[in-house]
Amino acid sequence: VSTSGTGRIDLNADLGEGFGVWRLGDDDALLGVVSSANVACGFHAGDPTTMRRVCGGAAAAGVAVGAQVSYRDLAGFGRRFVDVAPAELADDVLYQLAALDGVARATGTGVRYVKPHGALYNAVVAHEEQARAVVEAVVAYDPALPVLGLPGSALLRAADAAGLRAVPEGFADRGYTAAGTLVPRREPGALVTDPAAVAERAVRMATEGAVLAVDGGTVPVAVESVCVHGDTPGAAALARAVRAALEGAGLAVAPFTG
Amino acid sequence: VSTSGTGRIDLNADLGEGFGVWRLGDDDALLGVVSSANVACGFHAGDPTTMRRVCGGAAAAGVAVGAQVSYRDLAGFGRRFVDVAPAELADDVLYQLAALDGVARATGTGVRYVKPHGALYNAVVAHEEQARAVVEAVVAYDPALPVLGLPGSALLRAADAAGLRAVPEGFADRGYTAAGTLVPRREPGALVTDPAAVAERAVRMATEGAVLAVDGGTVPVAVESVCVHGDTPGAAALARAVRAALEGAGLAVAPFTG
Amino acid sequence: VSTSGTGRIDLNADLGEGFGVWRLGDDDALLGVVSSANVACGFHAGDPTTMRRVCGGAAAAGVAVGAQVSYRDLAGFGRRFVDVAPAELADDVLYQLAALDGVARATGTGVRYVKPHGALYNAVVAHEEQARAVVEAVVAYDPALPVLGLPGSALLRAADAAGLRAVPEGFADRGYTAAGTLVPRREPGALVTDPAAVAERAVRMATEGAVLAVDGGTVPVAVESVCVHGDTPGAAALARAVRAALEGAGLAVAPFTG
Amino acid sequence: VSTSGTGRIDLNADLGEGFGVWRLGDDDALLGVVSSANVACGFHAGDPTTMRRVCGGAAAAGVAVGAQVSYRDLAGFGRRFVDVAPAELADDVLYQLAALDGVARATGTGVRYVKPHGALYNAVVAHEEQARAVVEAVVAYDPALPVLGLPGSALLRAADAAGLRAVPEGFADRGYTAAGTLVPRREPGALVTDPAAVAERAVRMATEGAVLAVDGGTVPVAVESVCVHGDTPGAAALARAVRAALEGAGLAVAPFTG
Repeated sequence: VSTSGTGRIDLNADLGEGFGVWRLGDDDALLGVVSSANVACGFHAGDPTTMRRVCGGAAAAGVAVGAQVSYRDLAGFGRRFVDVAPAELADDVLYQLAALDGVARATGTGVRYVKPHGALYNAVVAHEEQARAVVEAVVAYDPALPVLGLPGSALLRAADAAGLRAVPEGFADRGYTAAGTLVPRREPGALVTDPAAVAERAVRMATEGAVLAVDGGTVPVAVESVCVHGDTPGAAALARAVRAALEGAGLAVAPFTG
Repeated sequence: VSTSGTGRIDLNADLGEGFGVWRLGDDDALLGVVSSANVACGFHAGDPTTMRRVCGGAAAAGVAVGAQVSYRDLAGFGRRFVDVAPAELADDVLYQLAALDGVARATGTGVRYVKPHGALYNAVVAHEEQARAVVEAVVAYDPALPVLGLPGSALLRAADAAGLRAVPEGFADRGYTAAGTLVPRREPGALVTDPAAVAERAVRMATEGAVLAVDGGTVPVAVESVCVHGDTPGAAALARAVRAALEGAGLAVAPFTG
Repeated sequence: VSTSGTGRIDLNADLGEGFGVWRLGDDDALLGVVSSANVACGFHAGDPTTMRRVCGGAAAAGVAVGAQVSYRDLAGFGRRFVDVAPAELADDVLYQLAALDGVARATGTGVRYVKPHGALYNAVVAHEEQARAVVEAVVAYDPALPVLGLPGSALLRAADAAGLRAVPEGFADRGYTAAGTLVPRREPGALVTDPAAVAERAVRMATEGAVLAVDGGTVPVAVESVCVHGDTPGAAALARAVRAALEGAGLAVAPFTG
Repeated sequence: VSTSGTGRIDLNADLGEGFGVWRLGDDDALLGVVSSANVACGFHAGDPTTMRRVCGGAAAAGVAVGAQVSYRDLAGFGRRFVDVAPAELADDVLYQLAALDGVARATGTGVRYVKPHGALYNAVVAHEEQARAVVEAVVAYDPALPVLGLPGSALLRAADAAGLRAVPEGFADRGYTAAGTLVPRREPGALVTDPAAVAERAVRMATEGAVLAVDGGTVPVAVESVCVHGDTPGAAALARAVRAALEGAGLAVAPFTG
């Protein structure tokens, strides 16, 4: 599933993560940089008006809209694992996906893929039942929708097993272990903060399907999309640097959804 | 818009108005009686799992699913007027409508019409801006969807003006004034509680397009659907009595959506 | 901490677990039976008006009010583990406890103890950090408040270590293992459904500090309160049977808070 | 109730108006400027952890904490009128007030006054029943707590009638009519944006109990507190300018609660 050699790569970020009066990140700036926008659907962030505004912006910018589905947890921004029963999780995901798709279609686009948010994203790396629940919701809504997630995750395995397109992504600003997994956030080397280094890692992931690991070796990381973060100060600037580097390396930055 | 003489009438009730562990009304019993189910979409009631269960039941029973859209007000069950800006209301309605439609389609059916709930229903009788906001959301989602509401309401006028099918409904258990409006709940004659009288009024609405007013006269009430309430003890029994009377009068009870 | 020989025992149940228009259980009936009411505080159930009504009833009936604190999870009724950071959990518990106490004092009583609800109750049996967070909130609010929980739980250990009164409770309608722990709900013998057996077990817990285990042996279960469930049909009747049996055995049913 | 001649004036602002991951305004900066902080209590903003942090900061800075009570409306930030029944509103206010007081006391301070937020603030200028509901909650919780509001409002009249201390406030950055009321936001002259003018108006309110009206005349505005806004860019700088001007005029800026 590597895109090495295809000459194109997707760049995705989380958008629309405000709620009501509150904003998080600079949606407008990011819409000018990324090719895919993971839009919050109301369960961890994203009231309907914010959703409509961001989808409208994405439609205008030619950015693909993804449903950034989450546990129901506004107070915790979806960053806390919730031991929800898989059947209920499937219904929650279906609800969010359908709601965002309706809003997106009203702005001239539509949901093109699904990516879990926060604690759910982390849970479905290994939690088989919750991973299958997410996939079940996507299948129920539209089996033509790809699922974006961590390479090797239970989510992507479940998506693949269900006949969905499973799209692996890389994190240019995260450290990787020799095994190709992410360095846990509390360990040394978890974060790469130097913009030049982040950009260089993105390019190597996209062109070689590989990344420098914390032990100094090179590990394969086959990705079809590179995730940049949108909720930190300077996020848009970093994303721009990554995009410029990718384009400088001769890659077309475009939605993986084609 | 009267159905007088058509030989058919719709019978609608509110369903799926529980939330999480809480239930309200007897959805299963009502699904065996009504032809149209106004299903709560999550803003005043109706978590995704409840929505899926009710939609699945409606699909199995041949009952048409309507989106019972509401103000965002779980604590007040959508019974409190909220002075939400029309643009935000439109987005809220679109979100709910799309979410329910996605859930309904996953169970083999889909949203067939839209009916506002509670305080929103009452508001859009006269609140032109909120009425237009509801209509705007329906148009944005699917202009083929009819809107169900009070005869003479701003909602039905706005729906008609926007090219939507505007479907008037009657309340067999509510008193009517000589002007054809509902007797306010706090005034004498507001409620009709005798089951035989309720059933007889439903039949007269459906066959003659008229109802006995509190002043003893007869007023025209052209309706395509009769609403029965589902959230009171004995609601299902009363609904059954209404249906039996309608069928006894030679009418086919069937969704107005055809 | 056994009450064997003291001639008195507390009987507690969950109350006020409705929300807005929704009700769960028969609060009025239970207020005539129990000596302690675990009142929902708004995070899994319990809007302020419900809280006030139940607290007023408890004040009138001489029933002690306890704060039934929960994860923030209305949709899941607090029955789903949430991996909330301990510091945030402490703040959430403090908020609920203070809110209920204010409402209770307005009705002439006040919060007399704290008991976690649902998934939080289960979590703090073993989750040391969350257990300490609950205790920290109680200490911050009022170190004179006892904590009610499972014998041997991390919660009661943490309460004891912090100088709080740790009050163990038993479940007359749950099976016990030879080790004195509850039989998991999915295993045989988890539930005791025969009212006479439930009442007899309550009496034995209260008088002998022991219960018949699923393996046929007798295990010590030193409790100061017996919990009866309030949210099932027939709950009030069962609670009455338990109370009658306790009183028939010569015990005074009275709040453990004295 | 004018403070003219007392040599002291209170300066209040809204604080703690974030929720979860979201922030609004610069709480830390404002805590160094104001003498009273209207702290959000969870219904329009303000999760328990935010509340604790802000209360702790207020305690450290010697800033008085007020309960900024609101309609239950996170999505609308409490800016939308909600036609909640007065009895329920009273319970909602009581709940918020008690919760914040508990959190505040855990940080070494406590709630010293009550001020409605947003749409509720505007409603209780004229809505007698909702005004009395707010007052009823304060009386039920602690009749020693003052209520802060608009001079001439139904709220302050109800507070006064109930024996509460009614504290009138002025808005240095808002235009006043010849009648002494605020110029509606959509009319010319509604906002005063020049920092020097804002500061000068604050001084005149505090020292003379008067303000320049939009018609060029001078109207009496007897206030015990001046409100500065905290949620706009530059809010802290403007608040600092107001404070400096007040102190430059020989006034002590101190909580009205003494």
